Amino acid sequence: MEKISGTAGQVIRCKAAVAWEAGKPLVIEEVEVAPPEAMEVRVKILYTSLCHSDVHFWEAKDQLPIFPRIFGHEAGGIVESVGKGVTDLAPGDLVLPIFTGECGECADCKSEESNLCSLLRVNPNREVMISDGKSRFSINGKTIFHFLGSTFSQYTVVPSGCVAKINPLAPLDKVFILGCGISTGLGAALNVAKPFKGSTVAIFGLGTVGLAVSFFLCFEYLSCLTFYILLKYEMLSFLSYEQAAEGARMAGASRIIGIDLISKKFDLAKKFGVNEFINPKDYDKPVHEVLIELTDGGVDRSIECTGNVDAMASAFECVRSGWGVAVLVGLPPKNAVLKVNPAHFMMNSKALKGTTFGNYKPRSDIPILVQKYMNKELELEKFITHDVQFSEINKAFEYMHQGGSLRCIIRMDD
Amino acid sequence: MEKISGTAGQVIRCKAAVAWEAGKPLVIEEVEVAPPEAMEVRVKILYTSLCHSDVHFWEAKDQLPIFPRIFGHEAGGIVESVGKGVTDLAPGDLVLPIFTGECGECADCKSEESNLCSLLRVNPNREVMISDGKSRFSINGKTIFHFLGSTFSQYTVVPSGCVAKINPLAPLDKVFILGCGISTGLGAALNVAKPFKGSTVAIFGLGTVGLAVSFFLCFEYLSCLTFYILLKYEMLSFLSYEQAAEGARMAGASRIIGIDLISKKFDLAKKFGVNEFINPKDYDKPVHEVLIELTDGGVDRSIECTGNVDAMASAFECVRSGWGVAVLVGLPPKNAVLKVNPAHFMMNSKALKGTTFGNYKPRSDIPILVQKYMNKELELEKFITHDVQFSEINKAFEYMHQGGSLRCIIRMDD
Repeated sequence: MEKISGTAGQVIRCKAAVAWEAGKPLVIEEVEVAPPEAMEVRVKILYTSLCHSDVHFWEAKDQLPIFPRIFGHEAGGIVESVGKGVTDLAPGDLVLPIFTGECGECADCKSEESNLCSLLRVNPNREVMISDGKSRFSINGKTIFHFLGSTFSQYTVVPSGCVAKINPLAPLDKVFILGCGISTGLGAALNVAKPFKGSTVAIFGLGTVGLAVSFFLCFEYLSCLTFYILLKYEMLSFLSYEQAAEGARMAGASRIIGIDLISKKFDLAKKFGVNEFINPKDYDKPVHEVLIELTDGGVDRSIECTGNVDAMASAFECVRSGWGVAVLVGLPPKNAVLKVNPAHFMMNSKALKGTTFGNYKPRSDIPILVQKYMNKELELEKFITHDVQFSEINKAFEYMHQGGSLRCIIRMDD
Repeated sequence: MEKISGTAGQVIRCKAAVAWEAGKPLVIEEVEVAPPEAMEVRVKILYTSLCHSDVHFWEAKDQLPIFPRIFGHEAGGIVESVGKGVTDLAPGDLVLPIFTGECGECADCKSEESNLCSLLRVNPNREVMISDGKSRFSINGKTIFHFLGSTFSQYTVVPSGCVAKINPLAPLDKVFILGCGISTGLGAALNVAKPFKGSTVAIFGLGTVGLAVSFFLCFEYLSCLTFYILLKYEMLSFLSYEQAAEGARMAGASRIIGIDLISKKFDLAKKFGVNEFINPKDYDKPVHEVLIELTDGGVDRSIECTGNVDAMASAFECVRSGWGVAVLVGLPPKNAVLKVNPAHFMMNSKALKGTTFGNYKPRSDIPILVQKYMNKELELEKFITHDVQFSEINKAFEYMHQGGSLRCIIRMDD
């Protein structure tokens, strides 16, 4: 702790993985990290992981190319020092830097309906600190730009409103993954889609977000039935979660239909409660027609986690008239246009919603999710499929590219 | 009563207003109305009115032309006779035939989330009875087609699931207007848009539906504040509703912004609580930009009551990020395509919803609204702007065309 506070007010030299060009492997460099300005916090990152959004902006295929840049936004660490005016965080606090903020003062923060802080809401195209329009990263005087939390660095600087202080006893190497995709999936399912018990749910895209949707849906909505099945089949001794979910499905409890273009993802998805699979490539007709036939009229809820506009259109088409809700979670390409038949709203009472970060307010709600994990009300381990040292960070990109990875822990401590 | 039941099982000859061709004035003809088949009811219509949907399908500009046809679907009457199997309705019952049904048995009817009965949901392109594919109307053997309730006839036949039985003491010449547009507006506001107190609401289209939205929003959401204002300004003696709404607005309670292409509608709209007006023709930029500027970021809720696809897009664009909800109520043209920026869902957490008949279940909920009127919890008189005898039914079309009409009572009793 003393070592950490001893650096307060000084520039810290440390390792960071710098993206010099779009789509090119990151390079571990020694960077200078300036001290935090007013209402900012400098955080020593201990664990981080790679998320699709990092890849999306690193590839910069349909996004603004901003380089050189330090990516990374799902991470856990310890506060090293705080800038002027920061009173609710102190050196040594265990924290998750979050890609979107909560100032606590604006209309959005004061509303129960919004988690999109007027001041600090997510902006992946912001490459500098909001307070002075400057970056805190440099290499020999050359500016290196921010991307959200820029957690692919041993130290980073973020607005204090983007830092969730968590229980100091929390196992950081597990709970840090609540900083983006998993909470997004969990919240999209429970806070936005809100299916009723026994609902049929279609999930487009079986990555971390999609599987978090499935996993927590099963957990939340099938638990009573699962218990019933345990009783019925006299299986009250230990039973794996997969078996329980399968049992619930057999009892007609719920259908969770996963849709992905990569069929090999289906094996992994089974472990997260997805119990039916569709690869759109296997059919001659649009996937929403397949889903409507399969469910005799449409699914009760759909959750789109890919960002592909055609998948979004299918996610809306495939929900049942009367009460169908489609939730868009995937980040669409810049200037994308979604075309829908408006009669589905007025004549069929369908609804189309979206969410950033599962409607969770980062500073208020994430510490509660961390506590739920500690109370064994949330399971996270299953999402961690890979583990690398920081020096091997490019392997995380390869694992994701191969399609078999969910979360890859990148260990910063060297 | 005896006279009514004396006709049971027989063909009734009566007057009906027949549309022989698209867009041509209706012609009062003597028609034959066959007796109700199983699960059908024959109703003697006492009052009916003209709704935009009648005009829409009568003009048949972008809808299937089905002629000759008897239009009309918002009406009140008395059951004349019932077909086999009808046990919950009897000759003499005071009823509103509703354009959409409630069988009570299907998944939709059993769900609290849906009012779109799988069997009897609204279908304006159905021109015959669902039971046998035949019309109950003819003139000298020539078939005249149905349109929803076909209430522009002294007698009509409808499925029993499309008939709401109401309090026999209800003043039918008032409450019959709960059969379509007014309940649609009321339900769109209270059941679907669900604004919070003090919300800013944009209403696209200031016809009956739009004004019902405004009127009942004021009633439901401003009432506490209204009372507060009455106290504050020591106006606890009688105060007109307009004054109260205006008072509430002055206190910063709520903004209801009406958008219409016909500025002369604004005077009437003021009486229904609309307190700001925009005619898109008065601006060089899209109306959603005007609204976003006017409200410093967007309205909290918007309700689209015109069916115009550009207005729908504006209604979605103009809602605030974080919690904005747009509700589509207007009937879009056939094959319409609504284009939206999908980032508004995922990045801005906006939602797009729709509703048929304000999410009310016709048989379960409409009798409750009738009772609310009788308890003075709903006001309806203000919506009745014109009054004609059946023989002058074409005048109702003229009044609507002129733009100053909301509901025109068409009196069938002669």
